[in-house]
Amino acid sequence: MAPCLSIFFLFIVTFCVTLTAAAAGHCSLQTFFPRPAYQSLIKHAKTPKPKLPFKTRYFPQTLDHFSFHPKSSKIFYQKYLINTQYWHKGAPIFVYTGNEGDIEWFAANTGFMLDIAPKFRALLLFIEHRFYGESMPFGKDSYQSAKTMGYLNSQQALADFAVLIRSLKQNLSSEASPVVVFGGSYGGMLAAWFRLKYPHIAIGALASSAPILQFDKIIPWSSFYDAVSLDFKDVSQNCYEVIKGSWAELVAISNQKHALAELSKAFRTCKSLHSTASVLEWLWTAFVYTAMVNYPTEANFLKPLPAYPVQQMCKIIDKSPSGATRLTRAFAAASLYYNYSQTENCFEVEHEVDPHGLHGWHWQTCTEMVMPMTCSNESMFPPSGFDYKKFAEQCRMKYGVLPRPHWITTEFGGERIEKVLKRFGSNIIFSNGMQDPWSRGGSSPY
Amino acid sequence: MAPCLSIFFLFIVTFCVTLTAAAAGHCSLQTFFPRPAYQSLIKHAKTPKPKLPFKTRYFPQTLDHFSFHPKSSKIFYQKYLINTQYWHKGAPIFVYTGNEGDIEWFAANTGFMLDIAPKFRALLLFIEHRFYGESMPFGKDSYQSAKTMGYLNSQQALADFAVLIRSLKQNLSSEASPVVVFGGSYGGMLAAWFRLKYPHIAIGALASSAPILQFDKIIPWSSFYDAVSLDFKDVSQNCYEVIKGSWAELVAISNQKHALAELSKAFRTCKSLHSTASVLEWLWTAFVYTAMVNYPTEANFLKPLPAYPVQQMCKIIDKSPSGATRLTRAFAAASLYYNYSQTENCFEVEHEVDPHGLHGWHWQTCTEMVMPMTCSNESMFPPSGFDYKKFAEQCRMKYGVLPRPHWITTEFGGERIEKVLKRFGSNIIFSNGMQDPWSRGGSSPY
Repeated sequence: MAPCLSIFFLFIVTFCVTLTAAAAGHCSLQTFFPRPAYQSLIKHAKTPKPKLPFKTRYFPQTLDHFSFHPKSSKIFYQKYLINTQYWHKGAPIFVYTGNEGDIEWFAANTGFMLDIAPKFRALLLFIEHRFYGESMPFGKDSYQSAKTMGYLNSQQALADFAVLIRSLKQNLSSEASPVVVFGGSYGGMLAAWFRLKYPHIAIGALASSAPILQFDKIIPWSSFYDAVSLDFKDVSQNCYEVIKGSWAELVAISNQKHALAELSKAFRTCKSLHSTASVLEWLWTAFVYTAMVNYPTEANFLKPLPAYPVQQMCKIIDKSPSGATRLTRAFAAASLYYNYSQTENCFEVEHEVDPHGLHGWHWQTCTEMVMPMTCSNESMFPPSGFDYKKFAEQCRMKYGVLPRPHWITTEFGGERIEKVLKRFGSNIIFSNGMQDPWSRGGSSPY
Repeated sequence: MAPCLSIFFLFIVTFCVTLTAAAAGHCSLQTFFPRPAYQSLIKHAKTPKPKLPFKTRYFPQTLDHFSFHPKSSKIFYQKYLINTQYWHKGAPIFVYTGNEGDIEWFAANTGFMLDIAPKFRALLLFIEHRFYGESMPFGKDSYQSAKTMGYLNSQQALADFAVLIRSLKQNLSSEASPVVVFGGSYGGMLAAWFRLKYPHIAIGALASSAPILQFDKIIPWSSFYDAVSLDFKDVSQNCYEVIKGSWAELVAISNQKHALAELSKAFRTCKSLHSTASVLEWLWTAFVYTAMVNYPTEANFLKPLPAYPVQQMCKIIDKSPSGATRLTRAFAAASLYYNYSQTENCFEVEHEVDPHGLHGWHWQTCTEMVMPMTCSNESMFPPSGFDYKKFAEQCRMKYGVLPRPHWITTEFGGERIEKVLKRFGSNIIFSNGMQDPWSRGGSSPY
């Protein structure tokens, strides 16, 4: 699809990166590392601002495509958004393969697909992923147990897309319209996999920031956090070293008397802290998420942030008063992430957790989406390994199931993907911003 | 894969056709037409004669690859046969993707894969399909109800192959060995679909007599029986007309007094007939199965038969005494199929049914393998349509589930397959003997 590369270039620097962060929960939630506060994404998902008027529809979807139990024939209603204002019959259908959140959130944060729709006279379709947003197969009980959540996985989601697209095309008497799928982050993985598994339905895929190689042992496990660290190091060696050194200072304070009171004051928390671990998580979140949304323009995907926020963070660190501790400097930098808009008088360091958002993706990481991640000595985070046994035991305790760590690479491949796709694939664009830490798990275009 | 065509030519006239008949139950069992007696295949499956020494192994397989219910994590033991006598490490692995029967039966009736193994120094692997042979996930209760049979379908079977092959390669420290999948009939469909869905595991597929286009409305529903009829018509117009006219004579006799006694005598049945319909089925089976195994040499796949058995049947019809009725001539021709070896003194026209063989494939036709078939006025069989509602209701009554008639084409495609595979496929050889009635539902090589 070489002729389209020029058209898609803009995507790489705008849309691609705007969606990069959607997978933010991956590393953390599955590895049980100190982790970014995933709920911040979910909060945003509740207040989308669609850029185009979409009609909301609900499609009667099969619960289990891959078995024929009497129970699995159950129908649930899958939400999708549709816009036909540019569409001419026979013209393409652009489909966003929804990821782990309300579909409105992705529609509101997607630019490229919408920008090119008039030129292609395309119909626009955003399909919500099962078990997210309103597409709950068991209503409020959807996350009740493994018995209900068992139907939440990527293969069922891909089959949902296939069935829905085919039915819609039939209803529109537009079987000949070519379908192109788009997605970012986990949605990008789904877009790429959809083209791989359903080439008879989608003629091409644009997979943005899609870390399809983040599984098994395909890439080094330290890649993600090494990349985050390099983003900071590339701006300023001092900035990197201050952050790297701040964790030891945090540990030292944690071992002191009145540590919680002191940290509550130093971190300007709205409520007294219950745990020092939450401070670590709060800082961690700020650095990791900022690296993921290090856009060249002012933007508001996860939080309102200035252009090149990593540079801005490092400027704060580098220009702090000479007597300031590393931890104080790290706090000041992290405050940019949480309070660039200057609206916060204090910080909710110990967030309340959105049970749906966490549960859905957490379940997926505890079953199929096993992406091992570690922090090497080269990273600016405290070194840590990936203890699969401990991880699996935590999953078993929580859900009563064990992960299948090799399943994704068995089902979708990944090893030597260049050779496989050269022989068997076409029309898949993997777009990656090279500062995006997920790019290390991304692939090249085919 | 054009350079290989010359190598595979022999396949087209030998191996390809020897496996053609494995799908014999398709049309009949799913459409509830008067139908070939499927159990004759199953009987053969019980007495295989492997052409090479195979070791039998059992692999702990996941029951449900596509959900993560606590129950679905159950393991069952999947049988496979392995031969390493020609294999050199790093050389190819040839895998037969087992279909609806004991795996020994397919190993015993497969020539080509075995013939070329020495040249390629290939490892040979025959993997049994779940819910057939010894690979019963719930032991003797496997066919108990839709709750157990729910796990019997082609997507689960393909995932079984993927998991087993990957594990075996790892155990043999031979991850780099290229895998080529082979299959005939339903096994051929599985081979083609495996290359489509798992191109990262299989580098190529040889799909023999694989009617992947026999679904939905891709080919005319009358194709199969039209092709059977044409095989007879091409040999002798009179032969075709005699068979075509025999059904009316059968109906006329059936309406007479003492019909069953008269037919029992005329058809030399071992036991008195209970139904005239079984005579129709007995004749029907003989003509359809003979068309499917119309090999140019003497062979014994379903039954011992001479070379070109359709020609031989027509010779019997054309040379019958001039006073013989059409029904008598048809009986004489059908006797060739049932008694070429001259060992039968009477005929078991009302067979006992093998519950396993019937149940497994019957379940598949009642869920995913919906291949509508009709008999047109041009065929030599009584004209008949396909009443989907009636068919679906019969499935609901029997199993408590409804078929998903559009699922296979959604999951695997089929419409405009040439375009899809041209853009996205490679290394799939669809080989079809043009006299094979299944060839109408086959595809071209890609």
